[in-house]
Amino acid sequence: MKKRVIVLGSTGSIGRNSLDVIAGLTDEWEVVGLAAGSSWKALAEQASRFEPRIVALADESNTDQLQSALGARAKLISGSDALVRLVEEFECDCVVCAVVGADGLPATLRAVELGRRVALANKEALVVAGSILMPLAEGTGAEIIPVDSEHSAIYQALQAGRRCDVHKIYLTSSGGPFRTHSDAEMDEVTLEDALRHPTWTMGPKITIDSATMMNKALEIVEAKWLFGLDSEQIEVVIHPESVIHSFVEYCDGSLIAQLGSPDMRTPIQYALTYPERRACPSKTLDLFEMRQLNLFPPDAERFPALRLGHEVAKRGGTCGVVLNGANEAAVELFRDETIHYRDIARIAERVLRQHEYHPAPSLEQLMALDRWARDEVARCTVC
Amino acid sequence: MKKRVIVLGSTGSIGRNSLDVIAGLTDEWEVVGLAAGSSWKALAEQASRFEPRIVALADESNTDQLQSALGARAKLISGSDALVRLVEEFECDCVVCAVVGADGLPATLRAVELGRRVALANKEALVVAGSILMPLAEGTGAEIIPVDSEHSAIYQALQAGRRCDVHKIYLTSSGGPFRTHSDAEMDEVTLEDALRHPTWTMGPKITIDSATMMNKALEIVEAKWLFGLDSEQIEVVIHPESVIHSFVEYCDGSLIAQLGSPDMRTPIQYALTYPERRACPSKTLDLFEMRQLNLFPPDAERFPALRLGHEVAKRGGTCGVVLNGANEAAVELFRDETIHYRDIARIAERVLRQHEYHPAPSLEQLMALDRWARDEVARCTVC
Repeated sequence: MKKRVIVLGSTGSIGRNSLDVIAGLTDEWEVVGLAAGSSWKALAEQASRFEPRIVALADESNTDQLQSALGARAKLISGSDALVRLVEEFECDCVVCAVVGADGLPATLRAVELGRRVALANKEALVVAGSILMPLAEGTGAEIIPVDSEHSAIYQALQAGRRCDVHKIYLTSSGGPFRTHSDAEMDEVTLEDALRHPTWTMGPKITIDSATMMNKALEIVEAKWLFGLDSEQIEVVIHPESVIHSFVEYCDGSLIAQLGSPDMRTPIQYALTYPERRACPSKTLDLFEMRQLNLFPPDAERFPALRLGHEVAKRGGTCGVVLNGANEAAVELFRDETIHYRDIARIAERVLRQHEYHPAPSLEQLMALDRWARDEVARCTVC
Repeated sequence: MKKRVIVLGSTGSIGRNSLDVIAGLTDEWEVVGLAAGSSWKALAEQASRFEPRIVALADESNTDQLQSALGARAKLISGSDALVRLVEEFECDCVVCAVVGADGLPATLRAVELGRRVALANKEALVVAGSILMPLAEGTGAEIIPVDSEHSAIYQALQAGRRCDVHKIYLTSSGGPFRTHSDAEMDEVTLEDALRHPTWTMGPKITIDSATMMNKALEIVEAKWLFGLDSEQIEVVIHPESVIHSFVEYCDGSLIAQLGSPDMRTPIQYALTYPERRACPSKTLDLFEMRQLNLFPPDAERFPALRLGHEVAKRGGTCGVVLNGANEAAVELFRDETIHYRDIARIAERVLRQHEYHPAPSLEQLMALDRWARDEVARCTVC
C-alpha cells in the first residue's frame, strides 16, 4: 500500500514544490488531500493531476466555481475549518504544513494531536505556539520534521550525534538583497528591491522577511522550540552562496554541516522519506563549481530583527506570537506601500515592547494576542 | 570500572596526541598498555605518567635501558612480536593503532581478530590488507573507527544517513606545500620544502606523503575498504584551509560535511568515545574567523599519485601492498636525499606496473609482496 500525504497550502511556493517532489515518488506516495486558501483555479488543476480524494478550500466565496471545475473527481470541503477537517479525515503518513503565516496553526496543531508526521514549512506555527506544539508532539508521538532548509540541515546534522552533546548551532543566511547596503542605502530601499532575493525563489512574504532578516529572527525562535535550545546556543552566520544550509557544533569541537543547491525540494523530500533518502529532482551541488564559500558575522545594527529574534527566543511565552503577528501585519502594509522597509522591524519592536507578557500562555491567549498585535500595528501607523 | 585502552605507537605524533586526549578523559579511561618501536626514553616517560600495566618495545636492543628506567612500575615485553602480545594481554575497550607504515599490520590484525574496537590511525593496514581486515572485522564484530581526519569526517557524516543512500564521498586535501607550484617549480623541490606542511603538524613520513599527495592516494584506498565504496565514488577536493575535513554526498543531493580545527585530537577522541562525544582539548573552530573556504579540483598532472590511488582502489587485490611498500621505501630514499621528490611517485608507479597481480591474495602473499616492492625500489635506484 502506498504512503498517504496531505498537502496544506498546496498552491503556494512550498506546496507546489511538495507536489513536484511527490510526482517523483509516485511509486511510494499518493496524495489523498490538497488544501488552499483561495486559489481555487490552481487547486482544481492540481486536483486533476494528483487525484486527491478530498480537496479543501478555506475561502468559501469560490466554492461553486471549484466544485464545477472538480466535478465528481474529488470531495470538496470549504470554510475556515476546512483544513482541520481535511487533516482529521485520513490516517495519513505525512501532513505537509505549507500554509504561510499564523493561519496554518490550527491544522498543524490538529495533525500533531493526531500523532501524524508533520513536514513543517509553516514556521509561524512554532514561533507562535512552540510552547504548546512541542510538548503535544512528545505526548502523541507526532514527528515534526522541519522543511525550512536551515532547520532541515540542523535536523540532518543532529543525526550525527546525541542531542545532549550539542554545544550550539549556526543558522546560515544569504544576508538577503541588502547584505552589502550601507546604512544610508537602506533608507532608499523600495518594495521592488525587497522582492528580489539573490539566491532563493520563494513566496513574497518570506522574500520580504529575508530582506529584513525577520525570517532569520523567526528561524531562531523556530530552532529554539524544534531542537530544545537556549537562545545563546543559536548563532546566525552570513553565507551569501546559500549552499551550506546550517551547522551543528558538538561539544568535542566538531561541526556537522549539511550542504546542497538552494532548492526547497531537497528538504521537503527529506521530511517525507526520513530516515531514508531518495533521488531528488533538485540539482546536485557541484563542489568543484563552488570554488569559494564565504562566512561572515551578521550586522545586528543594520538588521535589528536579528536582535528581536534572540530576545523572543530568550523570553519565550507570548513574545513569539506578538513578533510574528506584528511582522505579518507590517509586511502587509509594506506590500501596500503604506510604510517603508525600515518601519517593519521598528513597528514589530514597538508592538513587542508594548504587549502584556505571559510566560506560559494558553492557545486562546495566543490567538487573542495575535489579533491584538495586528490591530496594534494598524494603530501604530495611524498615529 | 574505567574503560581500558592500549596505545600502539604511543611515542609518534598520533600516539602522543592520543595520550593527550586520554589525559582529558581520566575519569572514564585508563591506559593499560603502551607500545613503541625504538623510542625507549619517550616510552619510559609516558609510562611514568600514565602507569600502564604493560609496556612493549619492538626493538630489543634497548630493552635493558627501558627496564631500568621503568623499574617495577610496569611489566616490559619486547621483540618484534611484542605489539601483538600486548594486544592479546588485555580484554580492552579500544586499541589505538598509531604505528606508522606496514609494521602496524600484525597488531591491528590481532586486535580485529579479538573483536576489539580499533581506533585506526595506521591507514597502511587497510591499504595493504583491507581485503582481509574488513571481512574479519565483520565476523568478529570489531569496530574499526578511523582516526585520519578525513575518514573520521566521513564516518561522522555517515551517521546522518544510511549506507545504501550514499552516492559518493569527497576527501578534502590541503593540497600540501606545493599546491600552487608550477610544473617547473616542482623540479626544484627539496627535502626541507617537503617537510613544511601548511596546515597540519604531523610526523615526517606522512608530511612527505602530503607533499606528493601519496597520502591522499592511500586515503582513497583506505576509504574504499573502510566504507565499501567503488573507486568512482571517491573524489578528492582541494581545500587549502583544512577545516572541512570531508563530505558525504547522499542520493538526494544532500552533502553532509564535518568541520573542525586541524587538530588530530578531535578524530582520535571521537574514535574512543563514539557514539558519544566529550569536550576535547582541541581548539574549537571559530566560523566567524574563517571568512572564506576554498574548494578546487585537484591537479592529477602535477600530482600523479592521485591517479595511482584511484587505480589501486579500482583494482584492489595486491595493488595496495605494492603501492604502499614502494612508497615507503621511496620516501626513505628521499629522506636520505638519494632520490628527488618527483621520483617518489615515478618509482611507485613503476613498481606497481611491474608486480605480479593477484585479485585475492593471502596474508603471506601480501607480506612477500611488501618485501618484494621494497627490494624493487632499491633495484630501481641502482640501475
